[in-house]
Amino acid sequence: MVRIGIVGGTGYTGSELLRLLVGHPQTKVVSITSRGEAGTRVDALFPSLRGRLDLSFVAPAEARLSECDLVFFATPNGTAMGLVPELLAAGVRVVDLAADFRLRDPDLWRQWYGIEHQCPELLLEAVYGLPECNREAIRRARLVANPGCYPTAVLLGFMPLVEAGMVDTEFLIADAKSGASGAGRTASVATLMSEAGESFKAYGIPGHRHLPEIRQGLQQIASTTVRLTFVPHLVPMIRGIEATLYARLTDPSRDLQALFEARYAQEGFVDVLPAGGHPETRSVRGANMCRIAVHRPQGGDVVVVSSVIDNLVKGAAGQAVQNMNLMLGLDEAMGLEAVALQP
Amino acid sequence: MVRIGIVGGTGYTGSELLRLLVGHPQTKVVSITSRGEAGTRVDALFPSLRGRLDLSFVAPAEARLSECDLVFFATPNGTAMGLVPELLAAGVRVVDLAADFRLRDPDLWRQWYGIEHQCPELLLEAVYGLPECNREAIRRARLVANPGCYPTAVLLGFMPLVEAGMVDTEFLIADAKSGASGAGRTASVATLMSEAGESFKAYGIPGHRHLPEIRQGLQQIASTTVRLTFVPHLVPMIRGIEATLYARLTDPSRDLQALFEARYAQEGFVDVLPAGGHPETRSVRGANMCRIAVHRPQGGDVVVVSSVIDNLVKGAAGQAVQNMNLMLGLDEAMGLEAVALQP
Amino acid sequence: MVRIGIVGGTGYTGSELLRLLVGHPQTKVVSITSRGEAGTRVDALFPSLRGRLDLSFVAPAEARLSECDLVFFATPNGTAMGLVPELLAAGVRVVDLAADFRLRDPDLWRQWYGIEHQCPELLLEAVYGLPECNREAIRRARLVANPGCYPTAVLLGFMPLVEAGMVDTEFLIADAKSGASGAGRTASVATLMSEAGESFKAYGIPGHRHLPEIRQGLQQIASTTVRLTFVPHLVPMIRGIEATLYARLTDPSRDLQALFEARYAQEGFVDVLPAGGHPETRSVRGANMCRIAVHRPQGGDVVVVSSVIDNLVKGAAGQAVQNMNLMLGLDEAMGLEAVALQP
Amino acid sequence: MVRIGIVGGTGYTGSELLRLLVGHPQTKVVSITSRGEAGTRVDALFPSLRGRLDLSFVAPAEARLSECDLVFFATPNGTAMGLVPELLAAGVRVVDLAADFRLRDPDLWRQWYGIEHQCPELLLEAVYGLPECNREAIRRARLVANPGCYPTAVLLGFMPLVEAGMVDTEFLIADAKSGASGAGRTASVATLMSEAGESFKAYGIPGHRHLPEIRQGLQQIASTTVRLTFVPHLVPMIRGIEATLYARLTDPSRDLQALFEARYAQEGFVDVLPAGGHPETRSVRGANMCRIAVHRPQGGDVVVVSSVIDNLVKGAAGQAVQNMNLMLGLDEAMGLEAVALQP
Repeated sequence: MVRIGIVGGTGYTGSELLRLLVGHPQTKVVSITSRGEAGTRVDALFPSLRGRLDLSFVAPAEARLSECDLVFFATPNGTAMGLVPELLAAGVRVVDLAADFRLRDPDLWRQWYGIEHQCPELLLEAVYGLPECNREAIRRARLVANPGCYPTAVLLGFMPLVEAGMVDTEFLIADAKSGASGAGRTASVATLMSEAGESFKAYGIPGHRHLPEIRQGLQQIASTTVRLTFVPHLVPMIRGIEATLYARLTDPSRDLQALFEARYAQEGFVDVLPAGGHPETRSVRGANMCRIAVHRPQGGDVVVVSSVIDNLVKGAAGQAVQNMNLMLGLDEAMGLEAVALQP
Repeated sequence: MVRIGIVGGTGYTGSELLRLLVGHPQTKVVSITSRGEAGTRVDALFPSLRGRLDLSFVAPAEARLSECDLVFFATPNGTAMGLVPELLAAGVRVVDLAADFRLRDPDLWRQWYGIEHQCPELLLEAVYGLPECNREAIRRARLVANPGCYPTAVLLGFMPLVEAGMVDTEFLIADAKSGASGAGRTASVATLMSEAGESFKAYGIPGHRHLPEIRQGLQQIASTTVRLTFVPHLVPMIRGIEATLYARLTDPSRDLQALFEARYAQEGFVDVLPAGGHPETRSVRGANMCRIAVHRPQGGDVVVVSSVIDNLVKGAAGQAVQNMNLMLGLDEAMGLEAVALQP
Repeated sequence: MVRIGIVGGTGYTGSELLRLLVGHPQTKVVSITSRGEAGTRVDALFPSLRGRLDLSFVAPAEARLSECDLVFFATPNGTAMGLVPELLAAGVRVVDLAADFRLRDPDLWRQWYGIEHQCPELLLEAVYGLPECNREAIRRARLVANPGCYPTAVLLGFMPLVEAGMVDTEFLIADAKSGASGAGRTASVATLMSEAGESFKAYGIPGHRHLPEIRQGLQQIASTTVRLTFVPHLVPMIRGIEATLYARLTDPSRDLQALFEARYAQEGFVDVLPAGGHPETRSVRGANMCRIAVHRPQGGDVVVVSSVIDNLVKGAAGQAVQNMNLMLGLDEAMGLEAVALQP
Repeated sequence: MVRIGIVGGTGYTGSELLRLLVGHPQTKVVSITSRGEAGTRVDALFPSLRGRLDLSFVAPAEARLSECDLVFFATPNGTAMGLVPELLAAGVRVVDLAADFRLRDPDLWRQWYGIEHQCPELLLEAVYGLPECNREAIRRARLVANPGCYPTAVLLGFMPLVEAGMVDTEFLIADAKSGASGAGRTASVATLMSEAGESFKAYGIPGHRHLPEIRQGLQQIASTTVRLTFVPHLVPMIRGIEATLYARLTDPSRDLQALFEARYAQEGFVDVLPAGGHPETRSVRGANMCRIAVHRPQGGDVVVVSSVIDNLVKGAAGQAVQNMNLMLGLDEAMGLEAVALQP
């Protein structure tokens, strides 16, 4: 059994990691940290785990993470970068579910996250953990930066078009919508049931931290500058992201459906719907899956892609386990076979 | 008191008309029709009206609508066009909340609604009931085509930009989201709580009936051909539409905030948020209001507008009452003063 | 115009008071306090009020509440009792929406609220503001203790039965369910959308603060000791309370429907459904109304009452305005005529 | 591999069976019937199954169910009783998820379901499939009547008390609440998102079909007549049932917590929370689990039990798979290990 540590286990990505790892046949969670809940049984906080996990949260100082084979960071942004160097030095592999290692440029990181990066030398080593893009590098990586939830949905939706050079990268639009769990398990007025329920809004129009991450990913694929407008929205539901993507086709004669199907034919966690389809977020609820449809409305020169994921699974913990499987040489799908919970 | 008739009173636009008219000081609903519920007390179907409306549904044949001063049609598409001519001939004024008189071109109507129009001669007479655009014509109209819900949100959001010639009308994008009440009060699997709840999806990407209506409205303003991509989405909530609009600025130097504020300074039912704002649908729940914010992300050449309405009020029954007030020479805001129900 | 002050205006009862008072023809809100938001425009916090209220929050020390005719306290429990005595001394009338003056026994107050009461001498003077029970006393009151949300629904449901001596008061059960707005507009993990959404639970089974309040009210009616089991539940919605009440009939031969109809025949804000009905909370959403049905399942000796209110209206701000109208000699229904928002 | 047939696979219990069986290591679904969807691929109706099930619906006449080892009926009430006798004669074992074989008395069946029973001789043979009560009989059964959703939650909650003779069975109360999926995947106005969302109501107070089923179960345990008041409610969520149970203790000195813990110590699918707990429905979402808390408020003589299940899992398809495992001699928990999806 692979020995797993989790740093920051009281949020939604942490608890989702636990849900997946408890059912994973080759891993054992040996340590899970929390400053605020040290000493509390994990299943007291998450009763859904009663009978499945006999573990209590420990303070970070007592976590003995260096004895783990692999450590997940499910911490707020800015925490992992203080701890990762010594873990790597101890031979522990790391998957960071926060943003600390997603941007390759430390200046960009400071600009969007407001603090200086503590280990910029690791930014170029860290592999961006989107297996559909970087599978081989992930297999060899010591440190994987698990992608953000919005970036996963948007990049997988745009990737076939940008790789094939079929769209004008000067004017890309990503209109993305997320359930409230994306805001995390932190007390706040804005995501109270009474505030976020029965309402819908755009937010972060002037700029959202996932914008530079998506742009970096697209530019890497396009090998050119990309101009992207990204607008996130808050949906009155718990799980799920849908991204509707718009771009102008440079060659409207190509068969988009065939392009997408070919691109993802070998990918077990990306599903291209038959032509004419519209994916629903519930079709991936709880599942490590990105479901995609591609359209060309009225046969015009605009392509519209709709891409859905569960933000906590393919958009966070599930993708992290997928990356872990790759890093450890296990079957990529191990522990990720559950069918979505529909309805 | 003005005598009001309602044809088709068992759906959501019908019941919302009743809610508003019951509180309107100058109108009295004298007749309300339903084929299926003839004989049923209205407050048996809608208990919220108990004690406020002493009326039963009548069969259309017994409705004596010609004795009304004004009749609202809250019927499925294709019903009003069979009855409106004789009502107009009897001197009754009409507001149609369905789509029968929204498109000026009968060929376009047939193309999108699948049936031949029965009174194409009225299509040019009918006034498109968007007061912020056609107020004077509405005052004089015998027949008002009440706008669709999506078109109201999208047109009010694009209007200042298109009027001012500030955007490239070759590539407009409207990404719109609606609560489930937009699908009406009709038994269907797709809008069951268990199907539409806790999920989000795009629909109608290949083409939605509100597309030609929005395009017609924009072209009338732009006096040129407009190319619009319109994608509606279903939000797991009851009331509310949010439309996020994207366009390329032809002159990025203009002050967009000032433009919007000036355009709507005299409009009582359009509210431009201060710069940097993001309207929430709940801020207009139950209210006859369109709330708008305009952004230019990162100072680039893309403008983003977020526009919200309650689809049943400013997107249907409230706008219909607003039109009625104009047609009858009443204060435009009469009966429409209620503050939104937040939370 | 009556000059109104509101202490503690940033919560849901405060904002709901504003919604109602803005539409009330005889009142003017002249002062609204908040420690945390002093200086902020009210409509910046509550955009639904934009264009309807030109007021900013002020710090309590600058509120000049003694110049008001009537002051509402929409504060956390324990705040009003420190300020009410001097307001009363200044001739200001007070409606407290918190619990400070609801229990007549200061020992009971300390037991359930954990602090010593600061002005126990006012506990006997304060009138419990349930107009259907204490209308005349409210008219004359200087200080009204506005009932809790659960107590309103439960007391109005049990009252006809207990007044008529028709049930065994040794074994009363109130199974009550509330939307999340009952928990207030305070940052907390437990009422996040992601925690409270799509889930249902009982809470407070060992004892909830509304239990002694309900028991006091029932005992006053019954003139005997009452044994009540009260279990509240959290419903994944924003507004609404439903209470299902169970009791054993002492005389099963009586006509319960007639009893309830007669008891509430003159009450404008209590609506008894026809026999066989089941009230829905949405039928009172936004309305100052309690809707009730009474059943005797299978003709047995158990009576079941279902009682619904909007916890923020008849369960808080609406009832407070109703009390204010009585205290000021205004029409009891003034400003409270809005029809519920359904759907 | 065990060959499985499903009759009526287009509803929620049918699709939930598929979700569970697709992940079950010892079964293979070989036939699934639907009159309305014959010829349609199953994953066209349920996209969550794409890539996991290569099967189309077949018309009942072509289903060759007699070649199956075990057949599940996920049909409307009254269908299974017409087909079960010949399947049993062919040596096929049957689990009926509808109500056809739940009541042992054919007169009671006719009274509550409105039609004559077609094979009353099987009513006494059929085993009521509550493993915590009838495990050994289920192992030997040819025909299992899978319990209703409400009865599962209520019976498991009352069972320890009634078995121990600790409550007055003359006055039992079960106040139960269910998400909308309990109403099935059938087009109807009452369970539209816009009707059932953001609202709460009691229904069926005069009598619900699960009442005689619960009463039969309790009477079997109590060996005496039981008087039960059962009131179901509709909760604005998709999955989940919570039942709050009330009874008068005949001997208040007993340790209720110990009683419940002892009763369910060996049960893998019933979890008794530590003293003072309140189970949430989300803690069992998607999981085959009943989670229970027992309270004695203020140390009085009333016991309150709160019991939660996922109505589609432990309340339907999960329990059916549990019964199947028992009937086939497999590990009782096989295929039922998934952790609940929280949040």
